[in-house]
Amino acid sequence: MPIYTTPIFNINLKKLIENYKILKKLSQPAIPAGVVKDDAYGLGALEVTNALYKAGCRHFFVAHGSEGALIRPVAPKAQIFVLQGIGVDSLPYFKEAQLTPVICSPDMLSFWHKNKIPNIRPAIQVETGLNRLGFTTKDLEKLSPSQLKEFSYVLSHLSCADEQAHFMNARQLNNFRRIKQKFFKNTPATLSASDGVFLGTDFHFDLTRLGAALYGINTAPYRENEMHNILELKAPVLQIKDLAKGEFVGYSATFRAPQDMKIAIVSVGYGDGLPRSLSNRGKVIFYENNEPRFCPILGRVSMDNIICDVSALKKLHTGDFGYLINDDYTIDDIARDAGTIAYELISNIGKNQRFIKSYTE
Amino acid sequence: MPIYTTPIFNINLKKLIENYKILKKLSQPAIPAGVVKDDAYGLGALEVTNALYKAGCRHFFVAHGSEGALIRPVAPKAQIFVLQGIGVDSLPYFKEAQLTPVICSPDMLSFWHKNKIPNIRPAIQVETGLNRLGFTTKDLEKLSPSQLKEFSYVLSHLSCADEQAHFMNARQLNNFRRIKQKFFKNTPATLSASDGVFLGTDFHFDLTRLGAALYGINTAPYRENEMHNILELKAPVLQIKDLAKGEFVGYSATFRAPQDMKIAIVSVGYGDGLPRSLSNRGKVIFYENNEPRFCPILGRVSMDNIICDVSALKKLHTGDFGYLINDDYTIDDIARDAGTIAYELISNIGKNQRFIKSYTE
Repeated sequence: MPIYTTPIFNINLKKLIENYKILKKLSQPAIPAGVVKDDAYGLGALEVTNALYKAGCRHFFVAHGSEGALIRPVAPKAQIFVLQGIGVDSLPYFKEAQLTPVICSPDMLSFWHKNKIPNIRPAIQVETGLNRLGFTTKDLEKLSPSQLKEFSYVLSHLSCADEQAHFMNARQLNNFRRIKQKFFKNTPATLSASDGVFLGTDFHFDLTRLGAALYGINTAPYRENEMHNILELKAPVLQIKDLAKGEFVGYSATFRAPQDMKIAIVSVGYGDGLPRSLSNRGKVIFYENNEPRFCPILGRVSMDNIICDVSALKKLHTGDFGYLINDDYTIDDIARDAGTIAYELISNIGKNQRFIKSYTE
Repeated sequence: MPIYTTPIFNINLKKLIENYKILKKLSQPAIPAGVVKDDAYGLGALEVTNALYKAGCRHFFVAHGSEGALIRPVAPKAQIFVLQGIGVDSLPYFKEAQLTPVICSPDMLSFWHKNKIPNIRPAIQVETGLNRLGFTTKDLEKLSPSQLKEFSYVLSHLSCADEQAHFMNARQLNNFRRIKQKFFKNTPATLSASDGVFLGTDFHFDLTRLGAALYGINTAPYRENEMHNILELKAPVLQIKDLAKGEFVGYSATFRAPQDMKIAIVSVGYGDGLPRSLSNRGKVIFYENNEPRFCPILGRVSMDNIICDVSALKKLHTGDFGYLINDDYTIDDIARDAGTIAYELISNIGKNQRFIKSYTE
């Protein structure tokens, strides 16, 4: 039997593009943009941008100037928006890669006026209720009519769009409409990320910003997920051993065997981004006769390994792979068990260099 | 005033080497090895290995073959142990970089016997109570005397060494001694990671494996931390704004202002590895007259930003930096507030490419 030691993380770009097409249709009449900040949520900004660009996407959002410069070569004719805006530390990236800063404050606007880049019309972020980045109405009132006209887009962000009935949705929509009417009548507008797309056309304006849902996350948890899962994380069994009743497992001896058991040591841990909060709570899936068998994680998740209960399995061998994420146990499932959200989960998994990262194209 | 947008993560290799020297002295009579797996806990395996090698360290531990191959160029004459062992997927790395596999199971030993690499004597891991990787006594009894002699080191790992009085420490020590006496009388031995070093010379044997404590983590929390903090994470203020009583902050509107407040939006989030569990729990430090002022994080940590209460500050400006980790608020402090351990925290922060990662040498 072959021995393996390395976890494998697969990203299915074909299914990502299927998600893009579903969301593009849902976004009508708005244009869909790809949100590829944070290394495309850890999944590889270059690979994801390249796939989206080939599928016709011509607007992208990143958080930092450096992220924009990274993707420019695979999105030569796209408008690339930078959500954290522009500063002395990121200015060279904007010049080099012709990026569009999203100006978030009067101070940043002053900086922009001293450091304008030819042919770039910045976007402006406005405050509608999230109380994160953005010009307040008071700030906007201080801008001259010609200053208000220099922006290529006006942008805001919803705080509670994953809850369809949340009062903040209507409140922010009204605020955004009022601001647009008063200050940005003829400026293209963008309000919604993935979750806002599902709230209906009122929320779409001219551009929707597709991130989480592209990657398979259910951003409308009040309805069944229409997105395809695009991720698979699997890791090999390094050893199978007997655990006698009364013995302890893992750091701090947090699990004690209530009876004789069979355990498998699987080669993946929090060093691979698997949340340590899955200690005594997570599961590994093995397949027997094509049926998924959910095997509980015993004890603490360590940096490089997890230990799971395989007492119920009949034919497990060293070298077999267990699944941590797949169609039967999606990123939303594992995030729920870990007490977090899928966004954070994949952001921490995807950036690792030590496992095999592969793409289905 | 200058505008900045990018977080800065600094790793102080000078202080890391000071920690190494303290731990080297504490490890006597054992030789100290550097544990640089998981990209040196996210801090940069190449940079950390290079610094340790220059300080005289000649033994290193990684988890995966690929990690060993990465550091070989900066540790040309060192013995590099690979804790997850060897398999078909990692074999080329072992040949290329002359790595020492830590064999963890009879199956892996069979694989090794079919794929031996000239001039490499593997190590063997034995089970003493952690119930993770390692040969059981039963497994060892099946090996011939000549097979038992082929190993360069016998290794085991403590489960509860961060609790000085834990009964598992004595139990594992006794098991290790018995196994060594019976099967590996003349084989060099290694039992302790950083936490075991503090348990006294009985636990040291021939080689100690220094990871967490090198990086400043307190692995003996029953006593004051003797290690230097080596890390600093800071991020710029993008915007300061007024928050009126009754307004909400961040995703899902989890914070509502009990009175009029002043808030700062800081350019760092879980996309930079900052745990999302710091939502409504973490803090950002600003300095006024050289005094640290701890400003609570309000609402949810988002991917790129946190929002904090700066009502008490008198002279804060856009472009000022807030500190997430430093000498006044160490990785152990922030991990405690986040409900995890510093190991997981730094592993997730360190691997990001989008912030500025700098080294003090």
